Amino acid sequence: SASAGLTLAAEDPLPSWNDGETKAAIVDFVSAVTSEGGADYVPPDDRIATFDNDGTLWSEQPMYVQLAFALDRIKAMAPDHPQWKETEPYKSVLAGDMKGLAASGKKGLLEIVATTHAGMSSEEFAQIAADWIATAKHPVSGKLYTEMIYAPMLELINYLKANDFEVFIVSGGGIEFMRPWTEKTYGIPPENVVGSSIKTKYEIRDGKPVIFRLPEIDFIDDGPDKPVGIQKFIGKQPIAAFGNSDGDFQMLEWTTAGAGRRLGMIVHHDDAKREVAYDRKSHIGHLDKALDAAPEKGWHLISMKDDWSRIFPD
Amino acid sequence: SASAGLTLAAEDPLPSWNDGETKAAIVDFVSAVTSEGGADYVPPDDRIATFDNDGTLWSEQPMYVQLAFALDRIKAMAPDHPQWKETEPYKSVLAGDMKGLAASGKKGLLEIVATTHAGMSSEEFAQIAADWIATAKHPVSGKLYTEMIYAPMLELINYLKANDFEVFIVSGGGIEFMRPWTEKTYGIPPENVVGSSIKTKYEIRDGKPVIFRLPEIDFIDDGPDKPVGIQKFIGKQPIAAFGNSDGDFQMLEWTTAGAGRRLGMIVHHDDAKREVAYDRKSHIGHLDKALDAAPEKGWHLISMKDDWSRIFPD
Ligand SMILES: [Ca+2]
Ligand SMILES: [Ca+2]
Repeated sequence: SASAGLTLAAEDPLPSWNDGETKAAIVDFVSAVTSEGGADYVPPDDRIATFDNDGTLWSEQPMYVQLAFALDRIKAMAPDHPQWKETEPYKSVLAGDMKGLAASGKKGLLEIVATTHAGMSSEEFAQIAADWIATAKHPVSGKLYTEMIYAPMLELINYLKANDFEVFIVSGGGIEFMRPWTEKTYGIPPENVVGSSIKTKYEIRDGKPVIFRLPEIDFIDDGPDKPVGIQKFIGKQPIAAFGNSDGDFQMLEWTTAGAGRRLGMIVHHDDAKREVAYDRKSHIGHLDKALDAAPEKGWHLISMKDDWSRIFPD
Repeated sequence: SASAGLTLAAEDPLPSWNDGETKAAIVDFVSAVTSEGGADYVPPDDRIATFDNDGTLWSEQPMYVQLAFALDRIKAMAPDHPQWKETEPYKSVLAGDMKGLAASGKKGLLEIVATTHAGMSSEEFAQIAADWIATAKHPVSGKLYTEMIYAPMLELINYLKANDFEVFIVSGGGIEFMRPWTEKTYGIPPENVVGSSIKTKYEIRDGKPVIFRLPEIDFIDDGPDKPVGIQKFIGKQPIAAFGNSDGDFQMLEWTTAGAGRRLGMIVHHDDAKREVAYDRKSHIGHLDKALDAAPEKGWHLISMKDDWSRIFPD
């Protein structure tokens, strides 16, 4: 709204962003698309912004948070499954042997996903995820994962929302893993979360209807399927998109190829001191093709080192 | 908002609804879940209402509007496909022989869907659907299909929205067939439309990224898969649901089985004079199991004949 815009302008809506080209690009973009009568004006209904989650809104090193969740679940479930001590991929997980787990390949990982993410109702899974995220700690910082979110990106979400953007998460992560905590953590409600999913089935259990989670992949919301997920869930082309890896290439391309003013940004993990520095050679958050394409495509790199005065909320 | 609620209370938010049990049930429910401090209070974020479309928000007789669209498309495309005159199911469609089309079974219908709904980009399909709906006329009334919407249901949508409900369409119809016109027709934006879908693929065509529509079913949003679609797209359990056929049984069951105050309603087509009377014996909008279950489940029947002072907008 106009009044929120004025208030924010007076206050600096992006206090954790250092002055410079990146911050200016954000403010210029928002100003352009919200200026009624201006050449770049976009009506509020079409102000759609999409954010990747892992590595864009919160830390993804040394392993995806959802993988940490799955491994913790295996450990919690192990007492009821004594045979896991002798059976891969469980044996490696229980021994903390990540190389052994990696050796079990995609098949092993899918089995871990099925074991930890399926076989219960959506309601039960949401409770398991909520309980875990409320207490689980990051292995390096010792902080809650929800404290490992990027303060500047949270300010950006709020700045866009104050300017009548509708903000969505579009993540390769599990949609039902994220939904229990995105509202509290980012101010993004469950219905604005797009992500990967497993198949589910409606059924009556003990006289009560439930959505039961099946051990079968339904949709992987990554790479070229991010625009597919956006079209399926939102049905509108975003005018702004934010990512951090090659998995966001097509989301950025789809967003910035549209007519009119568009904004594409890549969070570049170049701050070894305050977070972790990685890009082309990293398995997690692999950023190579999109890094090369950025200049030609007009995508802005967000330097965590230079553009952000702080990384995490205080 | 509070002020909107006061204004509406003074004005009667549901002028096309006759006074009686059904209207009272709606007003009582909304009043209960919006009364702060009351036993049945529901915070705005959880005020989710879902509406079936065909037969609930607009007429579905003598054939689903989307089927009329598909048949019109076949006729429009026929000049480029001379062989269709000799090949089923096209031959029957072009001859206006609905029995012949029916004889081609599910396979024939899926071929019609594939031919008319796939093989173009999402953007192109949206334009085709928008162009068609702007001019196509109902075979009996001669009115635009978007004039064959139910005025009382439109008032109900607006009443719920004025009371901070988030309103979704959850239809067996095609999600991309509906999205181009639901905002203008019902005030429901594309991102609040859940429906059936075909598979799509992100690709670059003539240097431009597109979402290309593939001739393969992705999801049929009907019956037990309506709650699945609700969980997938919305991620919250509705507190109010509105349908008209057995295809809405599980959506109503899922909605009204939840804890707290809930509302489930069935539009009963009992007005042969002003619309069409049909239920247990109809192929379109078959209402049998849900009609039997309604009393026990606490679902309200909306009698089009008795509860509505008018059917269509003037
Ligand atoms: Ca990422
Ligand atoms: Ca229906």
